[in-house]
Formats: sequence, C-alpha cells, structure tokens
Amino acid sequence: MLSFHPPLRDIAFVMHELLDADALIGALPGGDAWDRATIAQTLEAAGRFAVQELLPLNATGDREGCACSADGVRLPSGFADTYRRYVEAGWPTLGCVGRLGGQGAPSIVQMAMFELFNGANPAWSMIPGAVRGAYRLLLAHGSAEQQAHYLTRIVSGEWTATMAITEPHCGSDLSLIRTRAEAAADGSFRIHGAKLFITGGDHDMAPNIVHLVLARLPDAPPGVAGISLFLVPKFLSEGNGLAATRNGMHATAVEHKMGLNGSPTCAMSFEGSTGWLVGQPNEGLRNMFVMINSARVAIGAQVAGMGQAAFDSSLAYARERLQMRAASGTRRPDLVADPIAVHADVRRMLLTQRAHVEAARMFVSWMALELDCEAAHPDAARRREAADTVALLTPVCKAFLAENGTTVAQLAIQVYGGHGYVRDNGVEQIVRDVRVAQIYDGTTAIQARDLLGRKILPDGGRALGRYVATVRAEAGAGMAPEFAAPLNALCDEVERLTAVVAEAASGNADVVGAIGCDYLRVIGHLVCGQLFARAATRARRQIDAGTTDPFYAAKCATARFYFARLLPEAHHHAALARTGVAGLSMECDGAQLFA
Amino acid sequence: MLSFHPPLRDIAFVMHELLDADALIGALPGGDAWDRATIAQTLEAAGRFAVQELLPLNATGDREGCACSADGVRLPSGFADTYRRYVEAGWPTLGCVGRLGGQGAPSIVQMAMFELFNGANPAWSMIPGAVRGAYRLLLAHGSAEQQAHYLTRIVSGEWTATMAITEPHCGSDLSLIRTRAEAAADGSFRIHGAKLFITGGDHDMAPNIVHLVLARLPDAPPGVAGISLFLVPKFLSEGNGLAATRNGMHATAVEHKMGLNGSPTCAMSFEGSTGWLVGQPNEGLRNMFVMINSARVAIGAQVAGMGQAAFDSSLAYARERLQMRAASGTRRPDLVADPIAVHADVRRMLLTQRAHVEAARMFVSWMALELDCEAAHPDAARRREAADTVALLTPVCKAFLAENGTTVAQLAIQVYGGHGYVRDNGVEQIVRDVRVAQIYDGTTAIQARDLLGRKILPDGGRALGRYVATVRAEAGAGMAPEFAAPLNALCDEVERLTAVVAEAASGNADVVGAIGCDYLRVIGHLVCGQLFARAATRARRQIDAGTTDPFYAAKCATARFYFARLLPEAHHHAALARTGVAGLSMECDGAQLFA
Repeated sequence: MLSFHPPLRDIAFVMHELLDADALIGALPGGDAWDRATIAQTLEAAGRFAVQELLPLNATGDREGCACSADGVRLPSGFADTYRRYVEAGWPTLGCVGRLGGQGAPSIVQMAMFELFNGANPAWSMIPGAVRGAYRLLLAHGSAEQQAHYLTRIVSGEWTATMAITEPHCGSDLSLIRTRAEAAADGSFRIHGAKLFITGGDHDMAPNIVHLVLARLPDAPPGVAGISLFLVPKFLSEGNGLAATRNGMHATAVEHKMGLNGSPTCAMSFEGSTGWLVGQPNEGLRNMFVMINSARVAIGAQVAGMGQAAFDSSLAYARERLQMRAASGTRRPDLVADPIAVHADVRRMLLTQRAHVEAARMFVSWMALELDCEAAHPDAARRREAADTVALLTPVCKAFLAENGTTVAQLAIQVYGGHGYVRDNGVEQIVRDVRVAQIYDGTTAIQARDLLGRKILPDGGRALGRYVATVRAEAGAGMAPEFAAPLNALCDEVERLTAVVAEAASGNADVVGAIGCDYLRVIGHLVCGQLFARAATRARRQIDAGTTDPFYAAKCATARFYFARLLPEAHHHAALARTGVAGLSMECDGAQLFA
Repeated sequence: MLSFHPPLRDIAFVMHELLDADALIGALPGGDAWDRATIAQTLEAAGRFAVQELLPLNATGDREGCACSADGVRLPSGFADTYRRYVEAGWPTLGCVGRLGGQGAPSIVQMAMFELFNGANPAWSMIPGAVRGAYRLLLAHGSAEQQAHYLTRIVSGEWTATMAITEPHCGSDLSLIRTRAEAAADGSFRIHGAKLFITGGDHDMAPNIVHLVLARLPDAPPGVAGISLFLVPKFLSEGNGLAATRNGMHATAVEHKMGLNGSPTCAMSFEGSTGWLVGQPNEGLRNMFVMINSARVAIGAQVAGMGQAAFDSSLAYARERLQMRAASGTRRPDLVADPIAVHADVRRMLLTQRAHVEAARMFVSWMALELDCEAAHPDAARRREAADTVALLTPVCKAFLAENGTTVAQLAIQVYGGHGYVRDNGVEQIVRDVRVAQIYDGTTAIQARDLLGRKILPDGGRALGRYVATVRAEAGAGMAPEFAAPLNALCDEVERLTAVVAEAASGNADVVGAIGCDYLRVIGHLVCGQLFARAATRARRQIDAGTTDPFYAAKCATARFYFARLLPEAHHHAALARTGVAGLSMECDGAQLFA
C-alpha cells in the first residue's frame, strides 16, 4: 500500500514564500477572492479528498482495469461513485470562470489540486485532466450557444469531455489525419473516422461525453492547414434531456496499457456522428494550441503528485526496513539492524526523489502563475513577458519533469529492493503509471523540437537570452556563492552552447533532432537550479531569523543536494549536445543504417 | 508481438573475432570438442528453440502468470510442455561436466544459449537460470552421494533446483537469517523457516525440486559465520522412485510481480522438512560464492537477450511507422510520410539500444571465458589472472549491464510512442521484465560496495591498476586515435578518480555508499569502451581487406556512436563520484534527515 501525504506545507511555501504569488494573484481579475486562507482551506480539502476518496481506489483500479463491451466502457469499482462526490463537492468548477458557474481559482491553485489528486490516484485523475483541456478550448473558441449548452455542463462536471486527436496511423504527425466531416443541410456535420488513445472516450460515470474531434472538411487544404475542430456529443440533446439513442459512435476497444489501467483509453469509431464546427473551418489545430501549454504544465503537476507518492512510500519503507549497520557505526543498537535510511546510498536515492519532486512543484507552480498572467494581467507588458516565458519554458516543464518522474519512480523500486518489484507494495505501479508522461501531449523529442526549433533558434536565442539575464540578475542579488557560482556557470554554459548549436543547426537540419533532448535537459536544470537557489535563499532567511521549523533546514539541504548531485548533469548533456550529429548518419562505410 | 532475431552473427564475431576464444577454449580440458562449427551448430539450434518454442509463450505467459493453490504452483500454459522438449533436446546438459552426463560446453557457449533463451522468453528462462547456480554449488560442495543422486538428475533436467536464500526480513543482510536446522539421529536435519523470492520454489514442470537452503544450526555463531547450507528435496526418494507424500514444505504464495510473471517466485514454508548438510557446517555462505560470479554474469546475458528483443522490435517499428519527413528532406516520396528511422532522434535511440546490447554481449562473453580460465586453464598464472579479472569486474558486469538494460527497454517504448505504452506491442513487458536485474543477486548498490569496498580499496587499487594497464597497452598497439585517445583519457580519469576516492574513503566510512554506484558506472564504461574499440579495430581490418559484409561497417558505426554519445557519461559520473558525501549527511542545520 502506497503512502501519500499531501505536501501542503511545501505547496504553501512555493506559492507564498518562493513565488510571491499573493501579489500576482491579487492583481488578476477576481483574484482578491483567493487570499492565503482561502487557498489553504481549499487545498486542505483537496488533500482530504485525495487521501480519503482517491487513494483507496488506486491499487484496486490498477488491478481491475476498465472493461469494454457492446454496452460501453465500465470503469473500475468505486470510480463512478467517487466521481459523483467529486462533482457534488464542486471540484470540477474550481479553476473555471464565474460566468459559467466556476469558482475562478487561479491556475496555481487548480494545478495544486491536480497534483494532489494525481498523487493519490493518477488513473482516476485522467478524465478530469482531459476535461480541463476541452474546457479551455471551448472557452476560447466555442460559440455562445456551445458554451451555454455544453460548457456549463462540463464546468459543473455533469458531463465530461475528450480531446479526440490521434488516429491509428498518426500521432506526432497530425498532417496525416483522415477523419472527415461532411456538412449537413441543418448546419451540423457528419463525422466519419477512427480515433485512438482517447482518454475517457467512453465510461459509466457521467450521462454524456462531449468529444472535441479533429477532422477534415471535403475541400480542406492538405496537411495541418486543413484540419477543423468539431464538437460531437455522445448523446444528442432532445428537449430538456438527452436522446435515447447514442449519436453514431462507440468505443471499439479499451487499450490494455502498461499503467493507468483505471483510465479508459479508448479506440473510437465515429460513424456518421452528428457534430458542430468549433471556431472557423481549417483552424482546428491552431485553435487547439490555446490549451496545449496548460495541458503540458498539468503533466508536470501530475508527475509531481506521483513523485510525491513514490517519495513518501520510499521514505516510510527506508525508515522501517532493517538491514545492516551504518557504515559509520551502529545507529540503533536497540534493533537487530539499522533502518536502511542510514545508508548513504539510500539517502542519495531519497534525496534525489525529494529534489526532483520539489523542483517539479516549483516549476509547475511558476508556469501556472505565468499562464494566468499571460491571460489576464492588467499590465500589457507583464502579459507579453509571461507569454514569452510560457512559450519558452512549457516544453521544458513537460519533458524535463516527465523524465525525472520516471527516475523518481524507479528509485522507489530500488529503495524497496525485491519488495519494490512485488505489486502489493505499490511503487512499481507508479513506474508504470508515470511512464506515459514522456509520451502523451507530445513526446520528449517533440518538446525538444518545439524548444529548439520553434522557440530558440528562430529568434536567434533572444527570448532565451532574456530569461538567462533574469537568472543572472537573481544570482547577483544577494544569493549565497554556493548557489550563485554554479548558477552563473550554468548561464555561461547555456549561452555558449546555444551559440554552438545555432551554428551547427544552420549547417545541418538533423542537429535539432540529434541533440534536442540533451539541450532540453540543460535548460531544465537551469530553471530548477534557479528555483532551488531561490528556495534556499528564502529558507536561509527564515533560519537566520531564528525559526526552529525543520522544514527550512530540509529545504536548504535539498537545494544543496540538487546542486551537488543533480544539476551537474546539465554540463554532461551540454557536452553531448555539442557533439551534434556525430555518429548519427544514415550511412556508414557505404552501408545503410536502419532507414 | 515482439521481434527477436537470434544475433548469431554478432555472437560469432564476439567469440571468434573479438575475444579469440578458439585458442582459449582449445586450451581448456575437453575444449577441443568445441570447435567453431560445433559452437555455430549448437547456437543455431538454440536460436531455433528460442524462436519456435519460447517466443510464442512470452506474451501469453506474462498475461496468464502463475497460480498457487493447495495442490502447488501451476505455470502458464505451454511452459511445462516446452520444458519437456528442452530436456529432450538435452539443453540442460549443455554446460555441465561429462562425468555427470553433461556436454561440457564452455561457459561462453552456455551464456550465449542463455542470452538467446532470455531474448525470446525471460520468464521461462528463470528456472533454468536458477538451476545453473544450484548445479555449480553442488558440483563444488556436494558429496559424492549427493552428486550421484541429485546432481545427475539436475544435469539431465529431470529435476529442477532452487537457491533458497532470502527471508521476509532479510535480503541484502543475510546475517539476519532465522531459518534453523536441527540434527536428526540418522544424520539428516529438520529444517524450519520461511523463505521468500524463491525462483521455481514450486511448479508443475518436473516431478521433483531440490532446494538448497541457507539455515542456522543450533550452536552456530551469530551473523554470516553461522550459516550452513542444506539440500532439501520437495519429495524424498524411496527405493527407485519418490515418496508419495511431500517433504514437509510448501509454497505459501506466488508473488504478483511487476514483470517475469511466467516465473514462479515463491514464498516457501519449511516445516520440519528433511534435509542434508552440503559442505561443512557454518560454511554455507562462503561456499555459495562458488556460483555467485557466474550467476551475476548470467544476469548480464539475460539483459543482453532482452535488450536484443527490445532493439529488434524498435528497429522493425521504426522502419515501418510513417510520421513526418526527414529534417534534411523527403526520403521516401512514394509514401505519405517517411519511416521514423530517418529522424535523428530516433536513430539516436536505436543506436543507443544497439550499442548497449552489443556492449553487454562483449562484456558477458569475456567474463564467461575468464570464468572458465579461472576454473580450468592449465597455466596457473593464467588462472590467477583470470580470477583477478573475474573478481574485479563481475560486479561491474552485473550492475552496469542491468542498468543499461532498463535504458534499452525504456527506449523501445519511446521509439514506439503511445503504441509502446500499449501491452499488445510487447515492449513495455521488457521494461517490466528487465527491471529486477538491478535488484536480484545483489542490488546495484551491493555490487558497487563489492567493487569499491572489497575489490579496489583493500588492495590499494592494484588489481584495478593491472587492468587499466592492459587497456592502455591495447590502446597503444595500433588502435585508431579516435578510440585510443578517449580510452587513454578514461584510463587517466579512472586512476585519478580512484586515488581521490581512496583518500576520501579513508576519512569517511560513508564515501563508498555515497558514490559507489557512480564509480561503478565509470568502470563499466572503461570495460565497454575497451571492447568496442577492439571491435572497431578488428572490423576496420576486415573493411580494409575488402570485405563487403555490411556487418563490419555497422560495427564501426556503433563503436563510434558509443564513444561519441555513451562513453562520455563516464566523466559525468566521475565528477559526481568526486563530490563524495556532499549533501548526504544525516543532519542539516540541526534537523534530522530521514533516519
């Protein structure tokens, strides 16, 4: 059985002491309703819901999985009941706008809730996560009628929603989409096609599902410029209720996956289903980008939650399992052996987990604040600055944290040893559940291509340069040398490396693909290094002021560990990134390799 | 469905062209029976058995798993039948001595067979693997009677065997073993205790199982010096057959594991079971070390096999899956998109897999040769040299290759994208199956402690120094500078680092635990770098001599890739190893961390 302790103290530290979120939230429209006490109360309740309702269904959902039959998809026992209580408690409305019945919480609070739910039960949290993307998309591009009829019900949680993007033959390359839409006389469309990997494509926990489907109109231009977005409900509305028969569609299968078994990942067949255009024709893919950044940041939150559960479980086990004596001498003569947490190697693993989890929380929370600033800060310059930050760092947030999430989960197995390989202890499930974070919403390689190929190289590194300047400024503003020096060195490394990569990429189109993932890890460490340095600086201030709260000492220790043992990886990946396409050519001595 | 192509060409290259095994094998007693043609014929047959018999049961065994009831443990469908054919074909006898009915194949051939079987079905191969350890132990320490009665049947495959070591409360720390043995009047013993994680502890594919059980005699000294080894058969012999009732023991459970679901990992209860002492009292643990090196090398073979399947499957998918165009321009205008193998990032992943798999095969094969030289080379000096090499590098072989095995398998999922996360495609199973290689037969941290704490620091680094000198000598003997220069640089790094670590460890007992795993990775890259450099040198010789076999070009390309992209990790881990205990103290600013 997993341990999961809602990290409310750390969440509060990140919001109020690290990111100074209070002032920013207060400047947002409606933000004054979200003072510290309200946020704390909300997240305490979210933590309780996570531990009391979601955690008990985590292992059982994994074992039971979802079942697909002609009647539709059945979720694991308890999932639907818990969803009902989630709706009754108003959780779906938390981060939604007031005019549609939402509570208007800032994204940083909504992401924290999502982290807590994912820590307790990531499979259950998948549908609420997918709904969030659909919400943002309809909020930005849905017609008034679509918002009134569909979006209000999505906000309340009465109905759920999906994003139906991928097809069997195309995932990363959406130019190949084949699903087609034909106009009907009444202004609606008939949708024909097969979609794959649809989270919540069918289930038994809400009476209706609103699918947002990418498809081609008959006269659409080829490629990504010819993709439109359609709203396709599982049941059409009739009078004040739903039609008795289903709109022409069904889930043809639920995938059997490595993990997230309680989440119904559906193959969907649309067979002349009735749908309506959302936004303008052929602008479907472009419009979808309105939710892509928040969706990618949310994956970071998901990973932080799963990482917290992996760490909490590892720590509990390491304090309890007795094997051998500490190398420096017996620590617990009262026991037959010392708890394994005394061994330096085990401490290395525990600290690696804690550092990655805390880094993820800081990164995600910062991005969440900037997402709100981009959308609604009263100062236009601040909105532009936030937009730049979000555009530049979202791919890093998603991909860097997803990779670290697997590391954290794998270390949990290693701390448990053979007992971690056994299903009953729960940590191997985290490895299986978290693995897909490196794939969905764009693989690590796709994020790297976005970062380097779209965000950095085209503007000559200017947006990156502005970010690096803020890191240097912070390092120069009273930061302890133990953090400032390596942070400045990493800034130097990033600047030199970016110049080298830009030069190499201008001469060889394969460079971005060859070293993009390495480059992304360098930037990931820069961001997390900056945030940990700031965290240690703020914590040190409290210690110097005489606090006896051990939280601050632990924060300093974790930051030091991050700088000693994790951040140096940045220089390794920088060295790899400098190798460019070395060793990756398709031909070698006249022989074709692979392709 | 997985692809697995028995890598017979590469196995032959490693044996005959890289390691010059022919001369060494010929020098061993009975070795002249194992000429190239015999080896090739044997391994072709092993490859056929793997692909025809084992591969079809790999996915079904994973899905079905093992069932434990009062009647005993039932293996997945087909496992027992295939075992019968394995016995009929004589495979269990391959690497066993002639006087007990074995074929006397050298370890390098036996390991190659084991690699092939594991590539096709690692779960099925677990019992044969465990039997191998018991064989070596009884061969070295069993009485003439035990060998005649039990070992001949283990050699033939009529009966299987287990190593019953771990207990619920102790794995890495065997000083805590509680299972006890009481002498009976007839010279036998009664065994009482609970054992955990016993591979093949019960099953339905052979009529008897010979358990080798670690237990304490009543007057045994405490700790590891008081552990004895007992032979405890599932059924006692009666006349020419087996007793009708079971010896007092049974499997109380089969673990539900992350992977290797077709392998029955049993919790065993010994309830006054009748057993016999193997070897001298209180020498059980010491005697067990006779099989520990070969068992650890075999894990490398297992990982190489699973890695080959991961790579073969990834390559097949990357050649077939069409997404986007090559960055350098369309390669296949006849198709809607290019195969993803054209993308530099995908080639990076494929080459990483291939390099790790080929490195594992080289490392394991070399260790297998040295194991035989240690045991039976006619020249005493050569035996001592081999013993030194095996002692020094076995922990590296096991731990380094096990970690790389997870990397290779995880990359397979990443090449497949979302399709890799789906069970039907088979690659996620490899991630689950291979994960335990980092744990069993000593975790990575235990191997690191063995390497640094037992093999390197106590003799002042002399054995390591002798090995490094052989690398330098090889680099100086006509090796191309592209390999010789980085190899010499890594030798320098290893020597400097070892001095730093020795100094640090002399002042702080926690250093070995803190940085042992990093140090081990440095040595792993030194070994694999040496072997890849040699492989490229030999392959280059063939190319220069005019061969048109693309195998040699691919070998050079893979070696270059290893040096460009994988070996540099050694310097990163060396830098981490230099940080010693930084950031790992148990106290920080007065607060206790973890313990």
